[in-house]
Amino acid sequence: MNVLQNDSFLRACLRQPTDYTPVWLMRQAGRYLPEYRATRVKAGNSFMGLATNPDLATEVTLQPLDRYPLDAAILFSDILTVPDAMGLGLSFGAGEGPRFAHPVRDEAAVAALAVPDMAKLRYVFDAVASIRRALKGRVPLIGFSGSPWTLACYMVEGAGSDDYRQIKTMLYARPDLLHRILAINADAVATYLNTQIEAGAQAVMIFDSWGGVLEHRAFHEFSLAYTQRVMSKLKREHGGQRVPAIVFTKGGGLWLEQIAATGVDVVGLDWTCDLGAARRRIDDRVALQGNIDPMVLFASPDAVAAEARAVLDSFGAPQAANGRWGGHVFNLGHGINQHTPPDNVLALVEAVHSHSRAMRSASTS
Amino acid sequence: MNVLQNDSFLRACLRQPTDYTPVWLMRQAGRYLPEYRATRVKAGNSFMGLATNPDLATEVTLQPLDRYPLDAAILFSDILTVPDAMGLGLSFGAGEGPRFAHPVRDEAAVAALAVPDMAKLRYVFDAVASIRRALKGRVPLIGFSGSPWTLACYMVEGAGSDDYRQIKTMLYARPDLLHRILAINADAVATYLNTQIEAGAQAVMIFDSWGGVLEHRAFHEFSLAYTQRVMSKLKREHGGQRVPAIVFTKGGGLWLEQIAATGVDVVGLDWTCDLGAARRRIDDRVALQGNIDPMVLFASPDAVAAEARAVLDSFGAPQAANGRWGGHVFNLGHGINQHTPPDNVLALVEAVHSHSRAMRSASTS
Repeated sequence: MNVLQNDSFLRACLRQPTDYTPVWLMRQAGRYLPEYRATRVKAGNSFMGLATNPDLATEVTLQPLDRYPLDAAILFSDILTVPDAMGLGLSFGAGEGPRFAHPVRDEAAVAALAVPDMAKLRYVFDAVASIRRALKGRVPLIGFSGSPWTLACYMVEGAGSDDYRQIKTMLYARPDLLHRILAINADAVATYLNTQIEAGAQAVMIFDSWGGVLEHRAFHEFSLAYTQRVMSKLKREHGGQRVPAIVFTKGGGLWLEQIAATGVDVVGLDWTCDLGAARRRIDDRVALQGNIDPMVLFASPDAVAAEARAVLDSFGAPQAANGRWGGHVFNLGHGINQHTPPDNVLALVEAVHSHSRAMRSASTS
Repeated sequence: MNVLQNDSFLRACLRQPTDYTPVWLMRQAGRYLPEYRATRVKAGNSFMGLATNPDLATEVTLQPLDRYPLDAAILFSDILTVPDAMGLGLSFGAGEGPRFAHPVRDEAAVAALAVPDMAKLRYVFDAVASIRRALKGRVPLIGFSGSPWTLACYMVEGAGSDDYRQIKTMLYARPDLLHRILAINADAVATYLNTQIEAGAQAVMIFDSWGGVLEHRAFHEFSLAYTQRVMSKLKREHGGQRVPAIVFTKGGGLWLEQIAATGVDVVGLDWTCDLGAARRRIDDRVALQGNIDPMVLFASPDAVAAEARAVLDSFGAPQAANGRWGGHVFNLGHGINQHTPPDNVLALVEAVHSHSRAMRSASTS
């Protein structure tokens, strides 16, 4: 493997000093980029066609890095690969979200679930290895998975939902069934992430995209407990390097302390949280990732830069008064919108780099 | 007017002692009730047909009270009546949400906006008066409006949205336009609520249904500041009676203290908040309304009752150790789902009444 040329992302995750605040963007390889849309055509205009072809997945993973001075790459894949490998039959209708042919709704379907053979997910691990080779040490590669709860939402609902009626009915009426699904998901996710780490992922992120729809006690019992189970089984080191773990719960701002206590290195935040207030609450015990509103990218480049500076200023000087470094990884508070003007992304990344460098000189002068 | 026979809701709003915790349900007059669906047929199966006919609006408002021992009625209407009266052309497509024929997206459309003539909303005030007569003092009547921000979301987007791209683009690119819309909305909402109060509404509620989609600084500038403007113009007394004001911001748990500081009597909470933790944060300076997950109602009646008890226990003894009463109005954390089994609603209401009575005897024995 090549020597890592830019380790600012990994250092920020571990709350070590950096010259500037590293930045990457959730869903940075995606439809807002014309070059992504061109590659997708090569895969028959199919999302899973892209994701299951390691060469094409590598190509799209690197596209945003060629345009913007981003500080990390993230594996191009889908969060539903694991339940697909469980045999639930993932498909993407034209213009629609994901759908499972066989949702898990009754006792028999739950009894039939098992941690899938990782051989069925080989295309993912091959993509990780291929991307690492292609990156040649430019920036680190982040692997990822959906959280046990978020995977269960799709598995039980069978598709996206606006009320989560199926899974919440199971949660309140048959919690035993849901606990069984979540235990299997947690073990599957841990194995899946560990295999990504062995294949070359230098950090891992768990997307608890739907944790925020849960009642607060239910969040702890049905989402956080299983994220914790994943964390307890996760490789934290590989090849002598610490592998940082990031957990992002959309809408999870109220539960920040409890998420931080699962043993993660980094907590991802959406834009409803004041980053400075969040930092004070966790007192730099973990790093924070986020949290600009992706819709800021629809304003002018000057407005984008001003909002980026406001987010950095909210976090404050990375080195706290007590001398400890609080890690901040700049990111959006959610995935980038497909209609985002690509030039505004450059304005964002440049503003993050230049303003965070300026903040460091100001605080040391 | 008749003497009020059950004032537990108004007393809880004002943090006065009550024998039990009053309960009502957001969207309690609605599609989950077969009698509602039957009345709607009389209005040509049209939501606005119901809302604009004071007799039918009265009929559906009272239906849930005839089924369940609820402690308050809420005006049957839509949150978009005000922008409709502004001339935006509200319609409801079959099986779809609301839609405006003339969304407000440019300088000219914003310049043309004005506080509407309340005569155009006479059907609402007539419904309030008609419902008050029909209630004969059984329980108090709550009037309501969308918040300035939530109305603006629909006015700019033209319909529901999952990313709020149009209004957030305006927010970040042309905040001056959005501020003008919000100022007009705030003045219109204040006049609208005051006219409802004059017509007989005994409490008012502001639904900030989409406040939670805003970045935290933007929430304060574009939602809360205008809720505050409404509060500053709101009648707080009518006919010698205090008229409590409730503000509900879905997803607003992180901003509880600031919402409480606008001068409201009651803050509505969704189910992501721990009610007990919320109460400690605001130290009984305002009453709290909420916050069970409406999806609980899809479990068994026993499970519904257990979850209701858990919400009451989370709030704790209404009389705090210092002797002050903390007001709690039991409610869902969001509107009731249209597929809810009606019998489970009875289980919920009865569990709230019986357990909250038992809690009071336990804490005074």
